[in-house]
Amino acid sequence: MKFARFEINGWQSYGVVDGDHLRVIQGDIFGTHHFTDARYPISSVKILPPTMPKSFWAVGLNYADHVAHQVENLDAGFVSEAQEFRPWQKGVSCIIGQGETIVLPKESDYVHYEGELVIVIGKPARRVTPEEAPHFIMGYTCANDVSSEGSWHDDPSNWRKKTSDTFGPVGPWIETDLDPQGVEIITRVNGKETDRGSTSGMTFNCYETVSRISEFVTLHPGDLILTGAPGAVEGMKDGDVVEVEIPEIGILRNNVIAESSV
Amino acid sequence: MKFARFEINGWQSYGVVDGDHLRVIQGDIFGTHHFTDARYPISSVKILPPTMPKSFWAVGLNYADHVAHQVENLDAGFVSEAQEFRPWQKGVSCIIGQGETIVLPKESDYVHYEGELVIVIGKPARRVTPEEAPHFIMGYTCANDVSSEGSWHDDPSNWRKKTSDTFGPVGPWIETDLDPQGVEIITRVNGKETDRGSTSGMTFNCYETVSRISEFVTLHPGDLILTGAPGAVEGMKDGDVVEVEIPEIGILRNNVIAESSV
Repeated sequence: MKFARFEINGWQSYGVVDGDHLRVIQGDIFGTHHFTDARYPISSVKILPPTMPKSFWAVGLNYADHVAHQVENLDAGFVSEAQEFRPWQKGVSCIIGQGETIVLPKESDYVHYEGELVIVIGKPARRVTPEEAPHFIMGYTCANDVSSEGSWHDDPSNWRKKTSDTFGPVGPWIETDLDPQGVEIITRVNGKETDRGSTSGMTFNCYETVSRISEFVTLHPGDLILTGAPGAVEGMKDGDVVEVEIPEIGILRNNVIAESSV
Repeated sequence: MKFARFEINGWQSYGVVDGDHLRVIQGDIFGTHHFTDARYPISSVKILPPTMPKSFWAVGLNYADHVAHQVENLDAGFVSEAQEFRPWQKGVSCIIGQGETIVLPKESDYVHYEGELVIVIGKPARRVTPEEAPHFIMGYTCANDVSSEGSWHDDPSNWRKKTSDTFGPVGPWIETDLDPQGVEIITRVNGKETDRGSTSGMTFNCYETVSRISEFVTLHPGDLILTGAPGAVEGMKDGDVVEVEIPEIGILRNNVIAESSV
């Protein structure tokens, strides 16, 4: 099932995708809930980010082909880091949803997309094994891990490089029935495919990722974990439309605007 | 005034400190609110972390004397980073309040305290100048930026080193009337003073800190910013009681337990 968070007439709710409609969910999607008979056409609502997490984690350099691309284009120092599990926090304040606009900061000279699969946590998780991890995952969504690798490339905590406002598009919704280990991630800029990769190339798969973070940090219902970008990435410019598609989930689509042009 | 968040009989509220009582606040402390006539003895309530922030920021290596201490004890590589403004996100999942217990992870071989002044954001802030910053700050509280510098010393995003569960004691409450630039921070272990420093030694003061983060990231009401530890730090062990006191604010007190002893 696909669970979407949406707003209509100033009212927010979750709904389950049913063709081109959303069927309203009553209750807590992480606890007791049921599907009502109320429906809205998807085209009539504003789709919101699928959760407002307490924590927004990311796993960097999680695909060998992406590491190779980054080494070639940026800095060989990346290589030594790529064998270790090194998650970081993207910061919830940069989260935007389907259809919202990515703003390129006026101080930044190069901003690129990174299409990624996102884990959505369903239950509090601490010290769970990889085998137990699926029981703590509610589902999966798509993200664009927007990153400025230009003059901010050497930004140790990623704070400007990856957490500037609007750098966290997530959505459009949560797919609860997905085997995450062999799905394709397709990115498009202005309708043209620019990258295609498979989650089978992950160094640390989704279950290992949840297990390893939970060794030290409690994960909470609604927490989101970006699992890294496969393959190559390209810069974005004012006026672009960027799509991240995982066919089993849906298409996350965002416009790009340069702050300097506002 | 001192604004405390507290719980009694399963009910949570804010109150203003009035001697040894809390006077209940009705409404939104970041918006419209008023003081009621209801009072509780402070000793009868559970003091909670003063806010549950969207974002929990920290500024590392913000005092020259602390950098000198770290260089001497750990790794000279710190020095080159200390001149730049490099905030990072501590992660809200590690926040605990007054009287809660710091747990030393069984995998960690050395965990130390860091007594710090904390900025509490009062209004949404984006691209504010240092001169405007005080209008966006609601007040200040104390924190212990618990850190594991042993085998996790070289943990680039600080994720285990500084965001493991219980590594974020904050409190006891928010002081709204404070000039943050010349207050003392005193740390004690088991009643014995182990460090004393003044916020006048900050490299990036509170107003510059708010201004610089807000250049790229929106700060929200309730967001917390740790401003760095002055001076030396020492390890903590099972059974210790650690206090961080800023006399104008109060004393944050937490017990320490080793996970391996649980």
